[in-house]
Amino acid sequence: MADFTNTLRPADPQGPEILSQERAGSDVNVNQLATHLLSRNDFLQRQKKILAILEGIPIFCKRNQLNMARPDRYHLGLARAKMLRRLSLKHGWDRDDYIMADYLMDEMGPYALQATMFATSIREQSNDQQKAYWLPKVENWEIIGCYGQTELGHGSNVKGIECEARWDPATKEFIIHSPTITASKWWNGALGRTANHAIVVAQLLLPEKTGLKSNSNSGTANNYKYKSYGPHQFIVQIRDMKTNKPLDGIVIGDIGPKYGYPAMDNGYMLFKHFRVPHSALLARYSGVDADSGKYIKPENPAVVYGSLTFVRAQIVMHARLVLARAVTIAVRYLSIRRQFSDRDSKGGPEQAVLNYPTVQIRILPLLATTFALHYTGEAMYKLYYGTREAIETSGDFSRLAEMHAASSGLKSLCTTLAADGIETCRRAMGGHGFGGGSGMIALNNEYLSKPTVEGDNWMITQQTAAYLIKRMTEVVKHPESEPKETVDVQFQQFLARNKQSKTPAEYDLFNSTDDASGIVGAFEHRASYLAYQAYHARVVQKQPWTSMMISLHRLSRAHSETLLVSNFHHAVFQTSRPDPPLDNATLRVMRTLFRLFALYTLDVSASEFLLSGAITLQQLQAVMPTIQNLMTDVRPHAVRLVDAWSIPDYLLESALGSYDGDVYNRLFRKAHWENPLNLVTFNPDWRNEEVVMGEGAENARRRLEELALGVQGHEQAGKGDVKAKL
Amino acid sequence: MADFTNTLRPADPQGPEILSQERAGSDVNVNQLATHLLSRNDFLQRQKKILAILEGIPIFCKRNQLNMARPDRYHLGLARAKMLRRLSLKHGWDRDDYIMADYLMDEMGPYALQATMFATSIREQSNDQQKAYWLPKVENWEIIGCYGQTELGHGSNVKGIECEARWDPATKEFIIHSPTITASKWWNGALGRTANHAIVVAQLLLPEKTGLKSNSNSGTANNYKYKSYGPHQFIVQIRDMKTNKPLDGIVIGDIGPKYGYPAMDNGYMLFKHFRVPHSALLARYSGVDADSGKYIKPENPAVVYGSLTFVRAQIVMHARLVLARAVTIAVRYLSIRRQFSDRDSKGGPEQAVLNYPTVQIRILPLLATTFALHYTGEAMYKLYYGTREAIETSGDFSRLAEMHAASSGLKSLCTTLAADGIETCRRAMGGHGFGGGSGMIALNNEYLSKPTVEGDNWMITQQTAAYLIKRMTEVVKHPESEPKETVDVQFQQFLARNKQSKTPAEYDLFNSTDDASGIVGAFEHRASYLAYQAYHARVVQKQPWTSMMISLHRLSRAHSETLLVSNFHHAVFQTSRPDPPLDNATLRVMRTLFRLFALYTLDVSASEFLLSGAITLQQLQAVMPTIQNLMTDVRPHAVRLVDAWSIPDYLLESALGSYDGDVYNRLFRKAHWENPLNLVTFNPDWRNEEVVMGEGAENARRRLEELALGVQGHEQAGKGDVKAKL
Repeated sequence: MADFTNTLRPADPQGPEILSQERAGSDVNVNQLATHLLSRNDFLQRQKKILAILEGIPIFCKRNQLNMARPDRYHLGLARAKMLRRLSLKHGWDRDDYIMADYLMDEMGPYALQATMFATSIREQSNDQQKAYWLPKVENWEIIGCYGQTELGHGSNVKGIECEARWDPATKEFIIHSPTITASKWWNGALGRTANHAIVVAQLLLPEKTGLKSNSNSGTANNYKYKSYGPHQFIVQIRDMKTNKPLDGIVIGDIGPKYGYPAMDNGYMLFKHFRVPHSALLARYSGVDADSGKYIKPENPAVVYGSLTFVRAQIVMHARLVLARAVTIAVRYLSIRRQFSDRDSKGGPEQAVLNYPTVQIRILPLLATTFALHYTGEAMYKLYYGTREAIETSGDFSRLAEMHAASSGLKSLCTTLAADGIETCRRAMGGHGFGGGSGMIALNNEYLSKPTVEGDNWMITQQTAAYLIKRMTEVVKHPESEPKETVDVQFQQFLARNKQSKTPAEYDLFNSTDDASGIVGAFEHRASYLAYQAYHARVVQKQPWTSMMISLHRLSRAHSETLLVSNFHHAVFQTSRPDPPLDNATLRVMRTLFRLFALYTLDVSASEFLLSGAITLQQLQAVMPTIQNLMTDVRPHAVRLVDAWSIPDYLLESALGSYDGDVYNRLFRKAHWENPLNLVTFNPDWRNEEVVMGEGAENARRRLEELALGVQGHEQAGKGDVKAKL
Repeated sequence: MADFTNTLRPADPQGPEILSQERAGSDVNVNQLATHLLSRNDFLQRQKKILAILEGIPIFCKRNQLNMARPDRYHLGLARAKMLRRLSLKHGWDRDDYIMADYLMDEMGPYALQATMFATSIREQSNDQQKAYWLPKVENWEIIGCYGQTELGHGSNVKGIECEARWDPATKEFIIHSPTITASKWWNGALGRTANHAIVVAQLLLPEKTGLKSNSNSGTANNYKYKSYGPHQFIVQIRDMKTNKPLDGIVIGDIGPKYGYPAMDNGYMLFKHFRVPHSALLARYSGVDADSGKYIKPENPAVVYGSLTFVRAQIVMHARLVLARAVTIAVRYLSIRRQFSDRDSKGGPEQAVLNYPTVQIRILPLLATTFALHYTGEAMYKLYYGTREAIETSGDFSRLAEMHAASSGLKSLCTTLAADGIETCRRAMGGHGFGGGSGMIALNNEYLSKPTVEGDNWMITQQTAAYLIKRMTEVVKHPESEPKETVDVQFQQFLARNKQSKTPAEYDLFNSTDDASGIVGAFEHRASYLAYQAYHARVVQKQPWTSMMISLHRLSRAHSETLLVSNFHHAVFQTSRPDPPLDNATLRVMRTLFRLFALYTLDVSASEFLLSGAITLQQLQAVMPTIQNLMTDVRPHAVRLVDAWSIPDYLLESALGSYDGDVYNRLFRKAHWENPLNLVTFNPDWRNEEVVMGEGAENARRRLEELALGVQGHEQAGKGDVKAKL
């Protein structure tokens, strides 16, 4: 019989009608707000242009990804990476176009290191001769590169890496060697199956006095006594350019499946006395004199210091778009989904799930957070460009420390907010949030790396706290001096209030929850209080650093939240006109979102605000009812607000979150027409060992055992060489 | 050349040596504590017995799972399910043995519904005749079943399901029909590819007056005017017993990949006027008179009410083991992992990561939580058996409401704690926590369903809050009466304190953080305060229920935390001797863990304790330093404490968390010898479209396009019938 499902449609009300009504019920100016948020680098026009190209290419179709084996994800990822490279030439893409394509394709693939860490290292760490030789090869993609720093035994603590590069005065070569298993390079993207060249970070070992023999016996170069000069970068060819097999003396492989990044070949690599020429050491700042074997010291090791802030500004801007993606899916789906009628109006129609305060409290503060992240990302860019200009035009390095401190704490806070926010959205969507049609699975799996990479979120907050303790120490010492850094003003005001030993209620920071600048004051007061406590513990009481770590982390969070709140406040209250402009109706909603973000954030850490005297118990009692009122104000605008983030359906890859709201038809079609498992008929009878109907018990047994055991293999073994046995 | 990695070992200190030292440095009695925790149902002996059987069977090997395509996971899952069934007969397993095998196999597979929802429905909802017919078939596994309740459009709100069962008086059959796409059954485990029978939950529609014609035109039975009698259960054969193809008039399929449960075929199903006999309606409590077509009302619809508590006690007990698994991995790995030397002792040895307070604060309270969950799970079992006995021996239903309220809030809180705790552990493990060797990926993916299933964690808390408001209303009305339910005592005491309008400091609940029963009192006070607030808002001020939902959720959480804290307190302080026994050294550590759990939980919601007057600001200031001291006390026992949970390596499936601590060798071996991607050599050159070295551009293009696009197909289409095009 014919498939009768073709004629069925979802029960009323239809999703597209609901979203139309939602959109009609708000006066937020979507196009204007989109421009306001996404005009940097012509984001919107660029997105449109690149999207049109990607959507027409079969291998860029994402719908089968969740069905694939991890090895196939790499196969496809390599094909896609190649295609992107060819497209960029064909269409004359610039760097921003390429980044946009990567963003829309939404897959960390095996060429991801080529134009980033690999090229950057060569560009920034090479001397002129090295640059002249290597850069053209890199920029023409004649060689494919990766960046080999972290090891099995060491990640964050770079100084602890074990891979050695030992200078052999006799041959004027470096001997790269991995003395242990933990010295294996590990996690390095594009290393596992792809790259033929690598930047290898290794401990530079130079002979102290030639002629002295050591007791070590691993190789010719060991007839000297060596001293380590710390980690240095070497450029090394690691695979044969024809066969793409590892060179002799190197063992390489892919580290296997991970939480995310299935298309990326994160790799491991070990060296056995592998020799590279003198020219392999990237020698812009430091080096080894080939004749004397003496170390040439770097002159100004801090010269590229500021670029970390730029990377972290990008991380914050990326976090806002990732969070916006999750919130877009949640807001659209939860506007459409109906569940239960209101308890006090028995028998009424089922309510949109987004109307329940217990759902709003999870989603709407996150919606507000996307904007908070945005304005702070913008502020970080401004700080970075301002600082760079100050350095370049007048040699003024004075804002570097502030910038670095801000970027550490903000990287930690913002990626935590986004990572946690994704999962909060997913759970709020109930059963369908757990399904593949949600579009949340890959988003979640990929993004959960971010709290760890580029500085672990619990570790780097120490840098922010150390900076704040230093500033507080300065301000306590010279309370009347001209403030040197931004935070000094805030600390001076705090100390002045403290001196008058006012009681919390008298602080007058927070007259009512309706007073926007009072809220900012409360955040500043609480952060200053924690900074003062930390200063007192460390500088006055001389407490051990390690014992203070928990309060240091809280201090960094408090400071970073203050930055988020004050940047948001500045953008929507303190400028006479937002830039790019927003009309009054939209600005009004943005101001409500500011209050929602700030009060929600305050409520989460309310006890710190109480302890510091930034607010009173009485004031706190008003916070949750105010939050609930603010959510009621925001609710009618939710769909238009997420529309403004302009996330295309291709990127969402979500039946729940598509722009048109046709949730149930999309969910059903995806299951009914795109699921390969539905092509096979199985034998459910436990007495019969066959699994696929008709395959026979013996076949099934062999096939499934092979599947379960997998294969033993490594680079040197041929395919299917050895079958593993238990 | 030979593979030189075979001779390498990790840098010192070696993981196994570290764990030996950790174990030597604690006097916790592991075997005794293991017995204390795991003696119910001979858990430990049973685990040992079943493990020995499973570990020898090739298809139960888990090491290749993360490499597999989702369809293959189902293939393997079906083979494993069949094997478990055969093993259970061969070894004469009882029900607990089977559950243990399932727990160790750690995979929700396609037979999971057979002995649970499918059998239970038949057992509990059938009349004697139906039971006689169906139960032998189910218990001999002659038919394979599933349970079809939730639909695409309705989950939690069961009353809203759309699937209809319309009585046809002419033929004395029910006509099962899905009028819309949203009426499609959805999520139902084992339905997608496996089951040949289903319990179908459908709206029972009976003709109101025969002879009256309606305007509806969908099928012969519609010549009557129908009335709905709400959802009822029907047993329906859905697939042909020989071919396993869906019967005519039914469309079935697997819904596709999900966050977790890759081996389970969660399915969808639609009916088109599908006729089943009168006997299909499971008719123990209600039914349809075949002659008159009249509805037979259920007599006592609440009779199986208590079993929900039993299921939820199991959920809490399961949560503790799942969380223990994550904590075991984290504690072992973080004891071994070294990172940075102490900042104040420059140049010292690198510290174990677990020595940092910022790591302890994430892991050690979770370690304490495993025990908190345990004692509350035990208390729930006790409550359940006690209540059941009271009902059966003396018809005393009085404790049902309390039990149901407790179980709702606890299900919500405990599964949230476990789900969040898994991710907290994973992040604390940094880079390796993100890798497949962590053993955290499947754990995380599977468990994240738990906050949603068996009652959404944000929804069911309303039931707890409603109960507490009812009790508070009673106690306010009759403050001097004999307390009827457990919580009444607590409420009476609260009201007495309130009447004397004492200030917080005078409450004397919390003399010092060292006073264990004072801490319990603080929890009781805060929960009572929130209950009183809710009572006042709802009963006195008549506020709308929906507007109160956020505070209702907080109330439920506060009450549930009070239960966790007081059950833990009772177990380690109030009984003269713990049962099963613990020696003094171990008991001392358990008491420290109680304080750690309680104070950490208090700190998370500190502002509620402050607002309620349960603690003062001054007391709060002492909490975090006390927590840090407690963690210092617990730290040396951490490894032994997780050992006591007795999670076998086979279940952990973790290079980071194995009992022996050989972390780096295991991580390396897994990558180097068990990764199928490493058997293939790829062509990294972007100019060449080929992906696998030597396959040719044309082959690659065809192969990768098929991979990306997947196949279109459904039950009726033959395999490879239609290739999807964009």
